[in-house]
Amino acid sequence: MTPKVAMIGGGSWATAIIKMLSDNFTEKEIFWWMRSAEAIAHVQQYKHNPSYLSSVEIRVPEKNISNDIESIIAAADYVILNVPAAFLKDTLASVTPEQLSGKKIISAIKGIVPDENLIIGEFLNQKYHIPFEDIVVISGPCHAEEVALEKLSYLTIASVDLKLAERFAGLLNTRYIKTNISDDIFGTEYAAVLKNIYAVASGICHGVGYGDNFQAVLISNAIREINRFVEAVHPISRDIKESAYLGDLLVTAYSQFSRNRTFGNMIGKGYTVKSAQLEMNMIAEGYYAVNCMHHINKKYKVDMPISRAVYAILYEKHSPQIEMRLLTEQLN
Amino acid sequence: MTPKVAMIGGGSWATAIIKMLSDNFTEKEIFWWMRSAEAIAHVQQYKHNPSYLSSVEIRVPEKNISNDIESIIAAADYVILNVPAAFLKDTLASVTPEQLSGKKIISAIKGIVPDENLIIGEFLNQKYHIPFEDIVVISGPCHAEEVALEKLSYLTIASVDLKLAERFAGLLNTRYIKTNISDDIFGTEYAAVLKNIYAVASGICHGVGYGDNFQAVLISNAIREINRFVEAVHPISRDIKESAYLGDLLVTAYSQFSRNRTFGNMIGKGYTVKSAQLEMNMIAEGYYAVNCMHHINKKYKVDMPISRAVYAILYEKHSPQIEMRLLTEQLN
Repeated sequence: MTPKVAMIGGGSWATAIIKMLSDNFTEKEIFWWMRSAEAIAHVQQYKHNPSYLSSVEIRVPEKNISNDIESIIAAADYVILNVPAAFLKDTLASVTPEQLSGKKIISAIKGIVPDENLIIGEFLNQKYHIPFEDIVVISGPCHAEEVALEKLSYLTIASVDLKLAERFAGLLNTRYIKTNISDDIFGTEYAAVLKNIYAVASGICHGVGYGDNFQAVLISNAIREINRFVEAVHPISRDIKESAYLGDLLVTAYSQFSRNRTFGNMIGKGYTVKSAQLEMNMIAEGYYAVNCMHHINKKYKVDMPISRAVYAILYEKHSPQIEMRLLTEQLN
Repeated sequence: MTPKVAMIGGGSWATAIIKMLSDNFTEKEIFWWMRSAEAIAHVQQYKHNPSYLSSVEIRVPEKNISNDIESIIAAADYVILNVPAAFLKDTLASVTPEQLSGKKIISAIKGIVPDENLIIGEFLNQKYHIPFEDIVVISGPCHAEEVALEKLSYLTIASVDLKLAERFAGLLNTRYIKTNISDDIFGTEYAAVLKNIYAVASGICHGVGYGDNFQAVLISNAIREINRFVEAVHPISRDIKESAYLGDLLVTAYSQFSRNRTFGNMIGKGYTVKSAQLEMNMIAEGYYAVNCMHHINKKYKVDMPISRAVYAILYEKHSPQIEMRLLTEQLN
């Protein structure tokens, strides 16, 4: 049986995963849902995504690309969700639990569903009755831009069903993609969400004028903050220094490609949230994540001084200078 | 009793610590040994180090600056050693154990004494009979260049005598320097040495063409490699994610100021060791460190694939491309 894999979403990370699936040698059929009819027509005609990673050649059959989400999902055994967390509910509005039933659902989303304050795995489980054994999480460290350049990258594929994780990893491996397997779907999802907050923090500090020495202290505190949180939420045996946690934090906080860091940098330099978003013409996921985490952490009450400082700056209009100065007293 | 602090060494890190000592509010008398009579004359006349961090104003009394090491040591209660590890034996050649006896000896050196293959604390203990309770280690993350700019930085002051660590930290704290205390003199010294090796590795990978995604994997493996080694050498309770370990690694591997990373980058791009050293006009400590660690690890036999790859490239003339490709198979 040739596996049938559907991608839901048309952004840069979705395009990068389409490229991995196409370059991987295991036979499969790929389906692609994109929202925009114009983008679909462009991909069908020119074999390139007009807006994201446009250098990547797309080899998905024309007939398999559509904006009819129900038909795309119906055709697939594996459904990869890859829209911004903020749009997931809208995207799935017409999809029923029955239509997803029996399929393997893969989250390539790094985010929390707004209003629900649930990570994607929990959302799928609670709202669509997907059993946790059918859920897979794809985690970095992996900037889509470097996949387009075929730079060697490592992905972590997490599922409570390790055999499923391995099977799905077997659809992604290529010359430039290595995969690790993990059973920690909660830890990898939360770490992937939290790292965006610390990348914003890192940008704010840079914008305010802190240097590399402080940056190193900030990030070494950030990974401890991630560790405290995931241990509180889901205490299993894990090594937070592995690539899926520490590596993912590093690539986001230190890379030139990080949108969250760029956004934070603008905030640190005095832009308002609104003007930074307008200027960047895109959304930094850390902006939403810190709000969701603020609410989620009311339950767990984990000590998260960096996350709290970012929340205060972005949502309570505290001065970045003062808030970061106060934060420096709490780090070590 | 006004504490008397002697600095042995005239490089950029020595100059940065002189600045901290001078800006710190605790009353003290500072003495400074430099090898070069010309540098001493320059500092005495112009109040600036001619060669390193030349923007820093030096406020050490003229009469306290000398190239007579014995008189400088005789005057001091605290002796800060801050010459490259490769020159420590030469520098102390005329100094007897008796002349150091009863004094607190602070190592600001990140290195291993060549031939002896000992970290500084062990060397002082074995060759100069300094009791471990009189030894202090200063550790980063801290680039000297950012101290000159008064960018906020955190130091870790380690001693088995925590009261001594605290007392010495009280001589360094300033508006822009925060200090942590630790009892882990072995772990902080080894971590400070090892990080230079991983910064070279990071530079080599960049030079060969690996991107940010792989860099994050490399560093997340490097901190695990450091952890394995210090646990084998000195198994005490420590959190390797603290600033003195992980932070120090990050600032060295990711910073624009890192000489080790620059050196590695040139090796990755195809320079020979000799031509890279000539071009840089300075010595990357990681070059010596990896050789010493190679010998030390013959005893401990810790699994250190990154360190081994750097050794093979620098000392066995293996191809950086091939060695790094082999390394990628061992990381996760």
